[in-house]
Order: sequence, then structure tokens, then C-alpha cells
Amino acid sequence: KDIQAMFVGNLSGGRFIDQEHIASLIAEHAGLSPIPATRTEAACASGALALKQGVMAIESGFHDLVVVGGVEKMTDILTERTTQTLAMAADQEWEAFFGMTFPGLYAMIARRHMHVFGTTREQLAMVAVKNHANAMNNPNAQFRFETTIEGVLNASMVADPLTLLDCSPITDGAATIVLASEKKAKELADSPIFITGSGQASSSIALHNRKRIEVIDSTLGACDMAYRMSGRGPKDIDVAEVHDAFTIGEICAIEGLGFCKMGEGGKFTEEGFTQIDGKIPINTSGGLKAKGHPVGATGVAQAIEITLQLRGEAGKRQVDADIGLAHNVGGSGGTAVVHILEK
Amino acid sequence: KDIQAMFVGNLSGGRFIDQEHIASLIAEHAGLSPIPATRTEAACASGALALKQGVMAIESGFHDLVVVGGVEKMTDILTERTTQTLAMAADQEWEAFFGMTFPGLYAMIARRHMHVFGTTREQLAMVAVKNHANAMNNPNAQFRFETTIEGVLNASMVADPLTLLDCSPITDGAATIVLASEKKAKELADSPIFITGSGQASSSIALHNRKRIEVIDSTLGACDMAYRMSGRGPKDIDVAEVHDAFTIGEICAIEGLGFCKMGEGGKFTEEGFTQIDGKIPINTSGGLKAKGHPVGATGVAQAIEITLQLRGEAGKRQVDADIGLAHNVGGSGGTAVVHILEK
Repeated sequence: KDIQAMFVGNLSGGRFIDQEHIASLIAEHAGLSPIPATRTEAACASGALALKQGVMAIESGFHDLVVVGGVEKMTDILTERTTQTLAMAADQEWEAFFGMTFPGLYAMIARRHMHVFGTTREQLAMVAVKNHANAMNNPNAQFRFETTIEGVLNASMVADPLTLLDCSPITDGAATIVLASEKKAKELADSPIFITGSGQASSSIALHNRKRIEVIDSTLGACDMAYRMSGRGPKDIDVAEVHDAFTIGEICAIEGLGFCKMGEGGKFTEEGFTQIDGKIPINTSGGLKAKGHPVGATGVAQAIEITLQLRGEAGKRQVDADIGLAHNVGGSGGTAVVHILEK
Repeated sequence: KDIQAMFVGNLSGGRFIDQEHIASLIAEHAGLSPIPATRTEAACASGALALKQGVMAIESGFHDLVVVGGVEKMTDILTERTTQTLAMAADQEWEAFFGMTFPGLYAMIARRHMHVFGTTREQLAMVAVKNHANAMNNPNAQFRFETTIEGVLNASMVADPLTLLDCSPITDGAATIVLASEKKAKELADSPIFITGSGQASSSIALHNRKRIEVIDSTLGACDMAYRMSGRGPKDIDVAEVHDAFTIGEICAIEGLGFCKMGEGGKFTEEGFTQIDGKIPINTSGGLKAKGHPVGATGVAQAIEITLQLRGEAGKRQVDADIGLAHNVGGSGGTAVVHILEK
């Protein structure tokens, strides 16, 4: 009864479950009516956008206690239609209409990354192996089984060079965070976590309009904004959840966020720096790859994992962290959102 | 090049044109990348929500110059599918699945309003007659023809008691506003218009869950918030654009916003108070009814009409106004958003 507003990220209720206007529906079912209820959408970055609107709602003085969430129900329709619906987050006229789907787009990014930077097929697989191992310690993960480099390489080919185990799954899921002003948070919580940076950037929705496709330039813009706002830099980050909808996505993310040099994400992964006991543990939750990717919920779930890590409540996957980062990408990089969270 | 962020309202790009993630697409095509670009959705109130997010973005200090817009392309698909898509803004499980569409929902509201308050069929028609007359003076209106009470009563029945001329049309359209901080606005504009109130509320998305269906209770919540924020009340408002997707919608709106007593909207209309030369001119643009209702754009277009009126740039439909109000409703009232604008 104290919650003053709601923001919810959702990619496509309209196509997945024939339901738009879900903010009103959710507010009603959660007993939150008549509070303002707003849906945000930027493809797979819809959840982090809801979080960002919540931050702005509080910073603006409109509210001091809000709930932000994300949700996607992806399995009510046939798998072919799910893939088609996801493709609506790409450029319809120049990509989806011609049959392009997201595995295909990320396969092209992967091929180009391998060509330009010498990233190897095995290095991509190592992302999946690590994230599946992390998911073993996450009771909320969708895929709680381990895999190996050979396992990834020998899985069914989806879009060359990406196999089934390079791809995040189709997932039903939801995630929620209560967000408060600093004053209110200190009253209500024993161990509040503070959002100190919130950045967002856009880029061309289609790959062909970008100067270089092996770099997700919206990630650079979003983290630059979040780093400046928080006064932090990549070296200050102790743990991060990044957008690994495909294994190449994680490689591009750790480069774009500045955890390693551009082009060295594959090597950085191979050397173990992103492992749970590495220099900068990446996707301790299992990531989109193994925890699952209920599109609209993902950005919010990432911030929850960072919160658990900063609070020391991450159980068997706990790392030592004071500052964390959550990185959510929409489409093939048409949108990116970065949040920095601190104890 | 000075624009720092974009917010765009859109109901259902996913179903109308097979394109989600339109904020990224629009930012790119408008040459605005890499700025943050966010889509908001709450059915027919998506546009006003974009405006509200823009207000919060500025009030929060995140930005001091943003663009807010709304867009809908509704005519690329068959009319049956358009009606089905619009029905996704109602409750899918309890309304749309059983064949209910928006004319049907508003027809039930109209019947109940007539039963409880004695509103007459002719009073509903008078809303259409007035708004069509206003649209004659709006070069951007979709329906630039006059009608009469008999014309409305004798038009094809859509959902008893509503005929074709009680219903807003299917429309393609877009609208855009540049929003700045007070300081920036005074630097950039000779006659800036100020948003002094911004309110939003939700209600149950389905009619059957409401205590009374003849009152759009989200309108009461949204205007209460906007009136409190601005320090204004209904008596201070000189001109208003209200959500007349159906003629009964305007009657409910003028009651909910406090321009007349609850239940007296029909009589208030019949007495001419809402005419362009009346006590409180309503929908000088022609309203959704005759100007057109490109769903996601509507809330932004309403604020533009109020801006033109306050600036004295409304041409042949100019009224004398210092303070105006824009009222946008999502679905059958699951969401309402109210903005107050002043010279």
C-alpha cells in the first residue's frame, strides 16, 4: 500500500499473449491500482529501461517508493512464432522481412569479430561453459547442467558459427525490485543497495547501418554515461551481469564495458578472468545463457543478481564485491542500458 | 544535435507493422542516435505517458532538452485485424477472447451512464456534432465534414447505442514536442509553454472488476494528481482536449475532470458549455472523434493543440486561454494521464 508507482519492462505481450496494456493489468492483479503503471519497451533491454524510469521517477521528486519489474511469457505460442516475434526487435524492413532472426544477426557479429580480432570458436564456447557452471549454483536458473567446450562445439548448429549451446533459451519469467529514495531506503532496509549510475544509448537498429558490427557501440555510450554519473570506471567494478543472449554477446560486452581491451574479450575469457573466482566475475547468475532470458524481465533480474552479490546473499555463487554493474542490450545493439550498483 | 533523449508512445508496432523496438528505429531515422530512446505503452494513453516520462527526465536532472512523440501506423493491416489489435488493450482473458471490442465496451459504459444519470442518446450525438464542427477549422483533421444529431443517430449502428459517428476513426499519424527545462526553454523559445501538472492513474483493465462502470475512475486519480501538482483546479482551466475515442468518453471525461458535476455531462454538453465559444471549450482540435486517433500519437497531439491555443496560434479555432488541460485515456480506463499547461 506504500508503493506509489510501477514501471514494467515487456517486449511483446501483444504478440506472445495477445495482451497489450499490461501495466494496467499487472497493477490490478498485484493489488496496486490506482497507482500510475507504465510499460517500457526497447526489445531485450525493456527491463533495464523500467529500472531507469524508476530511478528518474524518484530523482525527479515525483515519487519516493516505486516498484520496477519485467515480465515475458514466451511459451504460449509455437516456437516458430516465438522466433518471428523476437525478430520484430530487429529491423523489420531490412532484416526480419527477409528471414533474418537473432541467432543469424549475432552469428554475423561473431564471424566478423573472429575475422577482425582473431577470436576463436573455442573462446566463444568458453563463455557458455562458464555460465552453465555458474547456473549450477543458482536455484532459479533454467539450465542447471554443465557443458564442455566439446559439448558446445558438437551441439546442433543454429547459425554458423553459433550452436544451440551458444544461444540463450526461450523462457517464461518475471523479476521485481522495490526502489526508494535514499532517505526512504535507509528507513526501510537494513542493507540498502544504491544505484549510483544509470546510462542508456541507442544505435542503428539494423546491423548494415553501423560502421563496424563487431562492436556494440550503444554499450560504449551507455556505460560512459553510467560511469560518469557514478564517478566509477571499469577498474572499480567487482562483479557484472552482462547481456549474453549469445556467447559472442558476452565477449562484445566485456570489451565495450572496458573490462578488457577492444578485441581481447576472447583471450580475456580464455585466461579465466571472467570466471567466478577470476579478476571480474561475469554472469555469476548463469547469465541469459543458462539462467534463462525471459526478455522483458532480464534487465531487472540482472540488477537483482548484483544486489544479492553486494548483500552477500548469493549463496554458493557468492563473490567478494562492493560495486557491481548490470548491462542489458536491446536487439542486436539498437539499445543498451547500464546500471552501477553499490553497497 | 542538442536533443539529449527521446520518449515515444506507441500502442502496438508489433501487431500493426511487425516492428517492436521502434524507439531505436525512430532515433536512427531521425538522426538522433546515439541518444537514449525509450518507448512507453499504456494502450491509447501511450503518448501522454511519453510526455510524462519526458517531464520526469527533465525534473530528475538527467536531461534538460528532450523530444517526446507518439506514433501509430494502423492502416497497413486489414480492418478486422486492426480491431483485434486494438482489443489487445482490453483484458484478453475476460474481454477480447470472447469477442469484445472497444465500441462494445464503451457502448456498455454509455448504456449504464444513460440508465444511472438519464443521459440521452441525443446528448451523445451532440459531442460528435460539436467535434466535427471544430475539425472543420483544423487543417490536420482527418474528418473535415460537419454532421448533425440526425446524421449521428441514423449512421450505421456499431454497438448499440453507438453508431459509426459516435466512434473515432482508424488513423495513421504522429506528433512531436520538444521539452526543455525552464531555464533552457526561456533561452530557446520566445513563448514557451509550461507544464505545471502531470498526473497518472491506473484502474482495473476490465470493466467487470470496477465498482461502477459509468465513471472512469482513473481520470479522477490522474487529474487529482495534476491539479495538486499545479495548484490549479477545474475552474482555472480555459480549454481542454479530452479523450473522446467514443462520444460517451467525452461525457465521462468532462465529469471526471470536474468541469461539471458527476452525471451532468450530457446536460452540460446540451447547454453548449463545451462549444468553442462556450464556458470551457472541449476538443477544439476536433478531438479523437474528428481530428483522428492514431493511438500512440494522440496524447502528444492533445498537448500540441493546447500549446497552439495558449500561444494564440490555433487559427480559426482560436479561443481565449491562459491555462489548458490534456486528458488521455488507455483502454476503457485502465490508464489515464492528465497534463496541465500554462503560458
